[in-house]
Amino acid sequence: MLPVPKPVEASALEADAAGREMFELIEALYPICRSITGDGVRQTLRLLAERFPLMIHEVPTGTQVLDWTVPKEWNIRDAYVKDSRGNRVVDFRKSNLHVVSYSVPIRRRVPIEELREHLHTLPEHPDWIPYRTSYYTENWGFCLNYTQYLALREKEYDVLIDSSLAEGRLTYGELLLAGETTDEVLISCHVCHPSLCNDNLSGIAVAALLAEHLGRTRRRYSYRFLFVPGTIGALTWLSAHEAELHKIKHGLVLANLGDRGPFTYKKSRRGNAEVDRAMAHVLRHCGEDYHVAEFSPYGYDERQYCSPGFDLPVGCFMRTPEQTRPEYHTSADDLTFIRPERLAASLENCKSLVAIFEQNAAYLNTHPKGEPQLGRRGIYRKLGGPDLETGNLALLWMLSFSDGRSSVLDIAERSGLPFRTVQTAATTLLEHGLLTQLAES
Amino acid sequence: MLPVPKPVEASALEADAAGREMFELIEALYPICRSITGDGVRQTLRLLAERFPLMIHEVPTGTQVLDWTVPKEWNIRDAYVKDSRGNRVVDFRKSNLHVVSYSVPIRRRVPIEELREHLHTLPEHPDWIPYRTSYYTENWGFCLNYTQYLALREKEYDVLIDSSLAEGRLTYGELLLAGETTDEVLISCHVCHPSLCNDNLSGIAVAALLAEHLGRTRRRYSYRFLFVPGTIGALTWLSAHEAELHKIKHGLVLANLGDRGPFTYKKSRRGNAEVDRAMAHVLRHCGEDYHVAEFSPYGYDERQYCSPGFDLPVGCFMRTPEQTRPEYHTSADDLTFIRPERLAASLENCKSLVAIFEQNAAYLNTHPKGEPQLGRRGIYRKLGGPDLETGNLALLWMLSFSDGRSSVLDIAERSGLPFRTVQTAATTLLEHGLLTQLAES
Amino acid sequence: MLPVPKPVEASALEADAAGREMFELIEALYPICRSITGDGVRQTLRLLAERFPLMIHEVPTGTQVLDWTVPKEWNIRDAYVKDSRGNRVVDFRKSNLHVVSYSVPIRRRVPIEELREHLHTLPEHPDWIPYRTSYYTENWGFCLNYTQYLALREKEYDVLIDSSLAEGRLTYGELLLAGETTDEVLISCHVCHPSLCNDNLSGIAVAALLAEHLGRTRRRYSYRFLFVPGTIGALTWLSAHEAELHKIKHGLVLANLGDRGPFTYKKSRRGNAEVDRAMAHVLRHCGEDYHVAEFSPYGYDERQYCSPGFDLPVGCFMRTPEQTRPEYHTSADDLTFIRPERLAASLENCKSLVAIFEQNAAYLNTHPKGEPQLGRRGIYRKLGGPDLETGNLALLWMLSFSDGRSSVLDIAERSGLPFRTVQTAATTLLEHGLLTQLAES
Repeated sequence: MLPVPKPVEASALEADAAGREMFELIEALYPICRSITGDGVRQTLRLLAERFPLMIHEVPTGTQVLDWTVPKEWNIRDAYVKDSRGNRVVDFRKSNLHVVSYSVPIRRRVPIEELREHLHTLPEHPDWIPYRTSYYTENWGFCLNYTQYLALREKEYDVLIDSSLAEGRLTYGELLLAGETTDEVLISCHVCHPSLCNDNLSGIAVAALLAEHLGRTRRRYSYRFLFVPGTIGALTWLSAHEAELHKIKHGLVLANLGDRGPFTYKKSRRGNAEVDRAMAHVLRHCGEDYHVAEFSPYGYDERQYCSPGFDLPVGCFMRTPEQTRPEYHTSADDLTFIRPERLAASLENCKSLVAIFEQNAAYLNTHPKGEPQLGRRGIYRKLGGPDLETGNLALLWMLSFSDGRSSVLDIAERSGLPFRTVQTAATTLLEHGLLTQLAES
Repeated sequence: MLPVPKPVEASALEADAAGREMFELIEALYPICRSITGDGVRQTLRLLAERFPLMIHEVPTGTQVLDWTVPKEWNIRDAYVKDSRGNRVVDFRKSNLHVVSYSVPIRRRVPIEELREHLHTLPEHPDWIPYRTSYYTENWGFCLNYTQYLALREKEYDVLIDSSLAEGRLTYGELLLAGETTDEVLISCHVCHPSLCNDNLSGIAVAALLAEHLGRTRRRYSYRFLFVPGTIGALTWLSAHEAELHKIKHGLVLANLGDRGPFTYKKSRRGNAEVDRAMAHVLRHCGEDYHVAEFSPYGYDERQYCSPGFDLPVGCFMRTPEQTRPEYHTSADDLTFIRPERLAASLENCKSLVAIFEQNAAYLNTHPKGEPQLGRRGIYRKLGGPDLETGNLALLWMLSFSDGRSSVLDIAERSGLPFRTVQTAATTLLEHGLLTQLAES
Repeated sequence: MLPVPKPVEASALEADAAGREMFELIEALYPICRSITGDGVRQTLRLLAERFPLMIHEVPTGTQVLDWTVPKEWNIRDAYVKDSRGNRVVDFRKSNLHVVSYSVPIRRRVPIEELREHLHTLPEHPDWIPYRTSYYTENWGFCLNYTQYLALREKEYDVLIDSSLAEGRLTYGELLLAGETTDEVLISCHVCHPSLCNDNLSGIAVAALLAEHLGRTRRRYSYRFLFVPGTIGALTWLSAHEAELHKIKHGLVLANLGDRGPFTYKKSRRGNAEVDRAMAHVLRHCGEDYHVAEFSPYGYDERQYCSPGFDLPVGCFMRTPEQTRPEYHTSADDLTFIRPERLAASLENCKSLVAIFEQNAAYLNTHPKGEPQLGRRGIYRKLGGPDLETGNLALLWMLSFSDGRSSVLDIAERSGLPFRTVQTAATTLLEHGLLTQLAES
C-alpha cells in the first residue's frame, strides 16, 4: 500500500488567479466556430495542446461507432442573407450562431416565403439569436434575433452558405495523466458548441485547469481527460475503449460551470457510486447553495457513459443545469454570462472531489477495546473550557468507526465533519500506530 | 408471451355517462333493506345480475366458515313505535335505518323506560338517524333522530318489529371474467348495508361498471368480482376457496367512492405489493388530492383478505375513509352525499390501475451500449426549441433502465412520468426492435 | 419458556415519593469531594451500600486496564489561597470545586503572576466556579469565580493544597440482581464528580432507585448496576469482564436526569439495538418533549461500552446533554439546578424501558386465516358509536402481525399504540388461546 498523498490546499489568491486564467482561456476560445466535426474543434484542441500534452485523435467519416456512424465533416467559411441593396441583413461574420450548424451549402436568390421556413428566432427574447443544429438531417438555415426577423420585408433575398459537408474526420482530444495505479478517473467535457461560453467553454476551461493542477500533483489514480464533441465524440471514444472501461473507478462530466447559479451535481445512474457520495459531501461543505439531483437519461455525455451496457460511475457537475435558464443555447450565453470567481469556485470543488478519491481509504483501529489513551500520546488537546475541539472529535470518530467497514468518507458523512478534518485525524492516528490501513478491496 | 393489449382511454363524455349510470344504479338500490343475510341482499344481487352474468351463491345457516358460523337468516316486513293515538312516531316504512339490523321480533306495549334502553340517537346531529346492528347478539332496537327522541313523552308505546330470524341462507354474488391467464385480480365490495349510499352502494356501483368495462376488454388477467356481506361474506368465500387463493396476484376492496373527499388508498398488509405501488402511481397522476395510508387491521374486508394466514395483496380504495366523517353510518349518507362525477373519477382510477396490471412488464434494451440513434429510426422528434418532449423523455428512460431489473411501472415511478406515457414509449421501442420482452418471472 | 411478568405501574403518589427520595439521596452525596479515586468515591459507595448489597471493588494503582493504567490515588484535606492579612480568599472548605481535581500538594508563597497561570475562571458567568481536572498530567490549580479573581490585587499569596497523590486504589461499586436467566441488562453511571448534582448525582440516584425497584420485582433478566469513575472505572470493569460481555443484551448509561430540559436518548453505536428502539418508543409515549440522537463517540461511558472492539448495545439516557448548557461542569450545577419531579419522570421512563425488556416477545396467531370471532369469546367490546376502542385496536394489531416475525414492540411501533396497551392485548389473546408464544430465538 502506498502512502496517501497530503491534500493540496488552494489559497484564495490561487483561486483568484485560476478564475482569471480560465476566463482568459474562454475569451480565446469564444470566437471559434465549433461543431461536432471540422476545423473549429481542431483549432480548439490545438489551443489546449499548447498547455498540456493533449493527444488529438481523428476518426474517418463512416466509421461505425456502436449504433452510430461518424458523420461527414462540416466546415464553413462565410454565410449571409443579403437584401436588394446588397446589405448583409444576416451575417455569419458577426456571429457564428447565425448559421444552423451543419447547414449544407447554398447560393441563390430565395423568395421570402421559402426563406422563412429556414429561419429560427426567439420571439420571447427578441434580441437573442438562438443556437440550432441539423447534424443528422441535411438542411440549411439561419438563426437571427426576432427584431431582425421582423425587418425582413423584401420579396426575395440573396442567400449564401459557403460550407462544405464531405468525407473527412471527427476530431477529439485526450489527455492521460498516469498515476501510481492504472485505476482511472474520467473527466469529460464537450467541445462542439460555437460561441457559447457557459455551455461548453466553461467545462473546457475547468477541465483544463484541473488537468494542470493534477499534472503538478502526486497521483494515486490515473486521470483521463476527454475533450469530445457531444454524443458522437463520447460514443466514438467508448466504442474504441470498451475493453478498458473496467479501469474507470470514478468519472465526472463538466458543463455550465461559470454562471451565477448554485451548484448542481447530477448523480450517476448507479446513484450510490463513490463519486456520488463524494461530490455530495464536497458540496455540503463548500459554503455555497447546491442541489444534488438523481440521475436522468438526458443531459450531457453522462447519458452515454451511464448507458445500461456501460453503467460507468460518472456524474455530471454543473451550476445551473442546461434547459433551466433562458440563456441556454442562445447568444446570451456569452462572456458576460460567466464570471471568473464562479469558474474558480467550481474548480475548487473539483479539486476537493479529487482529493477524496486520492485519499479515501478504510482503516482498522489497532486498540478497539475501549478508547486508547490519546492524552498519553500527546494527540488529544483537552482545552480549558467545555468545548471539544473539532480535531479531537475527528480523532474519536475515526477510532470509533474504523472497524474495517467504514472509509474516511463514510466517517466524514456520519460525523458531519469535513473529509479533510477526518482525513487529518486519520493521518495522526496512523502515525501513532492507532490505525492500520486495510488492504484495498 | 402474449402481446400486451393497448390501454383503453375513457373520454370525458364516457366518464360523464358512467357517472350518471352509477348514480342511477345507486338510486335503484337505495330503498332496499339489506343486511348480512336475507332478501335485501338477494334483491340487490338480482338487480346486478340483470347487468352481467353474476353467480348467486347461497350458504346454509350453521355452515362453519373458518372461525365463524353462518348466522340465521334475517328478514323484516314492518316495524314501528306507536303512540296512544295510533300515530307511528317511529316508522320503518319511512327509513329502513329505523330498525337495528337483526332485531328479533317483538309486538307489545312497552313502558317508556324500557323502550329507551332500545333506542339509539345522535344528539350531536339531531336530524340524523344512526345505523346500528346486532348480528351476533339477539336483541331488538330502534334508531331515530334526536328530535324524535325528545318528543317521546308518553308513559308507554306500542312496539312492533315484524321480523324473522331463522334457519336460512347467506347470499353472495360472484362474477368471473376469464382472461388469457388464470392469474386473478380480485375486486370486492360489501352489500350488507341498508339505505347507505357512500358506504356500500358506491362500491357496488363502481365495481359493477368496472366489471362491465373489463367485460368489453381483452384481458391478460382473469377478474373475480365479489359482492359479499361484510366480514361473514368474505370469510365464507375465503373458506370455500383456500386452495385457489394462490391465483390472486392483485386485489382491491372498493368502498366510499362517491363522496366529495380526496382519494384514499390503504395499502395491503404487505405494504409493497404491486397493487400498492400501482395505485399510489395512479393517484399521483390523477390530478386530485389523495392520501396513501399504511395498512391497519380494521376497515373493510381487506381485514380478512390480508389476515396473516392469507396475506393476499389486497388494498382498499376509498375517498373519505370510514369513521373519519360524521355522516358515516347515519341517514346523512344518502343520495345527496354522493355525486356522479365523484363516482366517475373513482372508476377512472380503477381503470387506470387495471391498465397497469394488464400492461406492466419488464423489457431488455437490445442496444445497451450508448444510446441507440433514435433520430435515424424516425422515433425521436427533436423540436425546434430547448424543451424535450415528454414522449422523447419516456423513450430515453425506457432505454436507460430496461436492464432486466426494472418494469415499466418501476421506470414510470423513477422518471415521474405517467405509466401510460412510458408504456407508449415501450411499445414504440419494441416495434423498432430496441427492446425485447423478458420472459415473465 | 417462562411466563411473562406483569408490568408494575407506578402511581403518581409513588412517583412523588421516589422524586423526594432521590433528591434526599443527592443532598446527602452533594458535599462529598469525589474524584476518579480516593475516599470521596469510597464514601459515596458506602452510602449506597446502606441501601442495597453493593459490592465495592478496589484495584491497585498501576494495574493495566486495556490501553490505560490505574493512576495513583488522590486525596485532599484542605486547600486555600491566603492574602497578606491571612484571609482565605479562595477556600476549599467553602466549595470542593475550588481545587483542580488531582492537584499535587503545594505549600508556599507564590507571586501573583505565577499564581494566575494556575487559576481558572468563567468570565462569561462571573459568579460561577468552573470544575477542572488534571488526572493524567501532574499539576496544581484553583478554580474561582471571576469576581474573586478580579479582586486579587496583591503581589503574592500563600498557597496551600494539602493533598496526596500516591500508590493506592481505584474504587468502584457493582450490584448484580440475578434474574431467571443469565442474560444481562447493564446500567452504568459515573461517580467521579465532586459537588455537581445533575452531572453524576442525578444518574446515581436514578440508578439507585431503579435498582431498588427491580430488587422488588420478578426478573427475567439479570441486572448489573455499575457505579464507576468515568472512563477509567468503565475501562477497569470492562478489562476484568471481557469474557462475560456476551451476556449483556441491553444497556444504559444514566446521566443528567434531574434538570428541567427535555429527555434525550442517545443511541448505541449499533443504532438499531433493541434498547434503541425500546427507549425511542418509551419517549414517544411519555408525554414530555424528547429527542433521540444518533450515536457519537463522545459523552459518558457509552464511549467505552460502545468502542468498536466491544460494540455493546448500550445507549445513554439524559435530559439536557452535557456541554449544551452553561451550567455544565460549574458550581451552578447545584441542588437548585435539579428537581424531584424531573428525577421521578426520568426514573419512570427507565422503569418503562425495563418493562419492555422483561415483557417483549413474539407470538403466533393460532387462527391466522381471517379474523377469529372475538365477540363470541367476549373479548371484543363493540361500542355503540363509530369509535373503535384502543384496546380493541390492539387486539386486531396483535392478531394481524403475530406471524412469527414481529414482537410486541414491533407491533406497538407499527400501530402507534403504547407497548403496554399492545402487551395487555397479547395477554388477553394468550389467555383465550388465540396466540401462542414462539420459542425464543
